[in-house]
Amino acid sequence: MTVAAQKPRTRAGGRAARRSLRAAPQHDMLPGLENRLPHCEVMDGEQVERIDAASMDILENVGVVFRDDIALADWKRAGADLRGDRVHLDRGLIRDLIATIPSDFTYHARNPAHNLRLGGRHSMFVPMTGAPFLRDLEGKRRNPLLADLAMFHKLSHMSPALHSSAHHIVEPYDHPISQRHLRITYSSMKYSDKTFMGMTTSPKNAEDVLEMCAVLFGAEFMETHPVTTGNCNGNSPLVWDETMLGAMRAFCRRNQPVLCSPFVLGGANTPASVAPAVAQLNAEALSALAYTQVIRRGCPAIYGHYLSTVSMKSGAPMAGTPEISLMNFMIGQMARHYGVPWRTSNTLGGAKTFDAQAGYESATTLSAVMHAGANYIWHSAGWNEAGMHCDVAKFIVDAEQCAMAYRMAEGPKWDDFDEAVAAVSDIGPGGHYLGHPHTQENFQRAFFMPELFDNNSIEQWAAEGGVEITERALGKAKKMLGEYQEPVLDAAINEALLDYIARREREIPAADALNQDY
Amino acid sequence: MTVAAQKPRTRAGGRAARRSLRAAPQHDMLPGLENRLPHCEVMDGEQVERIDAASMDILENVGVVFRDDIALADWKRAGADLRGDRVHLDRGLIRDLIATIPSDFTYHARNPAHNLRLGGRHSMFVPMTGAPFLRDLEGKRRNPLLADLAMFHKLSHMSPALHSSAHHIVEPYDHPISQRHLRITYSSMKYSDKTFMGMTTSPKNAEDVLEMCAVLFGAEFMETHPVTTGNCNGNSPLVWDETMLGAMRAFCRRNQPVLCSPFVLGGANTPASVAPAVAQLNAEALSALAYTQVIRRGCPAIYGHYLSTVSMKSGAPMAGTPEISLMNFMIGQMARHYGVPWRTSNTLGGAKTFDAQAGYESATTLSAVMHAGANYIWHSAGWNEAGMHCDVAKFIVDAEQCAMAYRMAEGPKWDDFDEAVAAVSDIGPGGHYLGHPHTQENFQRAFFMPELFDNNSIEQWAAEGGVEITERALGKAKKMLGEYQEPVLDAAINEALLDYIARREREIPAADALNQDY
Repeated sequence: MTVAAQKPRTRAGGRAARRSLRAAPQHDMLPGLENRLPHCEVMDGEQVERIDAASMDILENVGVVFRDDIALADWKRAGADLRGDRVHLDRGLIRDLIATIPSDFTYHARNPAHNLRLGGRHSMFVPMTGAPFLRDLEGKRRNPLLADLAMFHKLSHMSPALHSSAHHIVEPYDHPISQRHLRITYSSMKYSDKTFMGMTTSPKNAEDVLEMCAVLFGAEFMETHPVTTGNCNGNSPLVWDETMLGAMRAFCRRNQPVLCSPFVLGGANTPASVAPAVAQLNAEALSALAYTQVIRRGCPAIYGHYLSTVSMKSGAPMAGTPEISLMNFMIGQMARHYGVPWRTSNTLGGAKTFDAQAGYESATTLSAVMHAGANYIWHSAGWNEAGMHCDVAKFIVDAEQCAMAYRMAEGPKWDDFDEAVAAVSDIGPGGHYLGHPHTQENFQRAFFMPELFDNNSIEQWAAEGGVEITERALGKAKKMLGEYQEPVLDAAINEALLDYIARREREIPAADALNQDY
Repeated sequence: MTVAAQKPRTRAGGRAARRSLRAAPQHDMLPGLENRLPHCEVMDGEQVERIDAASMDILENVGVVFRDDIALADWKRAGADLRGDRVHLDRGLIRDLIATIPSDFTYHARNPAHNLRLGGRHSMFVPMTGAPFLRDLEGKRRNPLLADLAMFHKLSHMSPALHSSAHHIVEPYDHPISQRHLRITYSSMKYSDKTFMGMTTSPKNAEDVLEMCAVLFGAEFMETHPVTTGNCNGNSPLVWDETMLGAMRAFCRRNQPVLCSPFVLGGANTPASVAPAVAQLNAEALSALAYTQVIRRGCPAIYGHYLSTVSMKSGAPMAGTPEISLMNFMIGQMARHYGVPWRTSNTLGGAKTFDAQAGYESATTLSAVMHAGANYIWHSAGWNEAGMHCDVAKFIVDAEQCAMAYRMAEGPKWDDFDEAVAAVSDIGPGGHYLGHPHTQENFQRAFFMPELFDNNSIEQWAAEGGVEITERALGKAKKMLGEYQEPVLDAAINEALLDYIARREREIPAADALNQDY
């Protein structure tokens, strides 16, 4: 990790500086990403209009099912055309509603130094969530515990390019499912002072998260400041259910942003073709984005999606495929067309171990989402096995990959251009630059030096034990955890959070493990 | 490999078609790549001018060393300012010379169906070359033999997205080094009818290659048709040596294109900064491009480079880093500024085995060069361990990755848009598309299905033996080699090639293994 390269230039250079570079780990969060890469736009203006028109036709003529009485009543009041639970949404109504979604906003973290702007060119990396298994510090695949979740929150806190501690990076199996959201939220809040995500597993769970946010930030502060993010998945094609809609209302009423995320298995729940799949997904996202504004006008909201394509040979979801890259490029264009921040999924893949497949899949998707200009870049670390497990080793490597993508997105630097071109004249044909003052001054920031990649000769690598990338990454994770310093949380707030959890755990039956009302 | 998806649509659909899709391997070469992605341009026009001006200043004021008496005499005649072996090149002279380099041209293969346009939006994937080791069909790392080279030429021939058989993909150790270029060239010509590269290990070796090309294509045909490619590496900073310049003359005199490739170890033989390193590299490439036109006006030539950055911790070359992506984007802009086709290096990396590092490095670079709009995309398959070995397993996976990048670069298809959007209406909310006629008709081409990635559940994967990607890829390689059919080579031509080799092997002392005159 060469976050040292972010530091101001120094004349200290040379051997001592190199030693200090090796010795001093740097865990400070990178500022919010400002992605300066040109957007990869694979559609011309006419094609954007064609997707828009097709989506509006779908919304008007096919309609969207809202399986939720409150939402149906809300839509009726808003002037939509209801036919049973199918809501037909006029394009005028859609455009009017989404017009009040902020094009960018600022997340407020409990450490104000970790506040983040989101939207336009402003982006953030968020680790994966939702894994029912982990590969642990010993590489073993097993069900996670609360301590494992805490570990991932600590690693998120210490990874410079990760801008959030997310929420249930892994599912903690050692706590009743009905009460788990309380402990997950507390873990996100306690082990990191970066922004975090809020559980949306039920409307009441979402209310609990927001109550805990109110303890941490103050209810009044939340009225004008986004402090967390909820994710609401749609059931493609064209269905939103009561759980997600109820959670969405809980967030929007408190002015907190949700990701409006159609859950796409391309070819299974969309047409088997890229552009038409985007048209459907776009209609779905718009319907939910519009509903956020029915709930509360002006509330921040994020155009979302979960994207995979389905193998027509086996039915398995696929990642890292060219169509997923293309759909990311196209969805980015649509979100910008509507002026709404957008969320994508980063390092998805179906590899079973942390092997070459995992590397290809993750890097392909990371590149695509950077060129697509995604804002809320979720699932940026740890994902493997189609999300079934979070791999500690991969988490560490992915986090470094995000730091590398961050550097790429900064674009080339020009501040030392004339000075360095003068060095060409100093050195002349056939020389080398290692001893030149410009090199001495700039080597720390000039070229990213991946810590998790081994670039030594095979002889040197073998002499040092032939350590594979998984072992290197697990060693790094252990070292980080050894250096972890818990960010100070005000003692009164901590106590109030614990009191809230204790009260709710008395109220929520632990045995009622699958009751979605809790 | 889902090259089947390139086939015309059929109504055959359904289970039988899926079975046939699984059963019928498709080894036909994909047409030359037409990269429709927008170019990732990280410089504005002023910054392009700034690089250009800095490069021209270097050429005029610092000069370039040509360590070769013939080149010095050529430059003198061309009006350059010589100071010893340092040639100072006026920007007017440079601009005049490079103006006659064709912006695109067509490679002619011995099978005209494999002819390829290069330049502008037209690109090609070429496998790696030059590895002193291979990891073989059993995964063993060892020195290669002529039979191994033949194997790689066969695999190149059968990989749809690889557009060339290159030349010495691996170094055949079982033949004297002084005669090796003859056998390498014969192997490229015989085992594939795609275009190939010509050895430039010495001027006389280059002459041999071109004589063999004359046997295959006819000397007169070559006068107006590019049939092979030579690579000429520069010694950065700012030196071209006799070996490379002599080989360059051999190619250019016959109107055959060379890659003018400064060999960049960023930070060691360039300034430690991205934009200044590009300015130096650009000066170097321009000096060689200009010299091709001194040799023969109008001869095709390709702006080249070999790019790595150097770890300032260890001195090791690095790949897959953000600065290499940025430099690719910038070099693409410079080459287009001059209207010259350009070459890059694809899947470079320093991993010692085919592990996750190899996957990340390769995919990162592949994405970058696609967005950079590179034309001659060399080292596209097999590269590992900083080029020290070519891995059969990685070769197979990389070749599939190129096919996936190819698909991405085609952009979204629109021909079935209205039909597929109509399917959304047919299916309606909550349905699925698997049985819809549009899906049945389009599943083969809709989504790329990587053959080398396993996307099944971990339970299914484990039940099938938990086969790792290396083993899957080696299995695929063995299957391909079992199905290999040698493309017919005219018997008289074959005999003439063998006669030429036999004569030259009598003339060239086998024992004189390191004599660079041969």
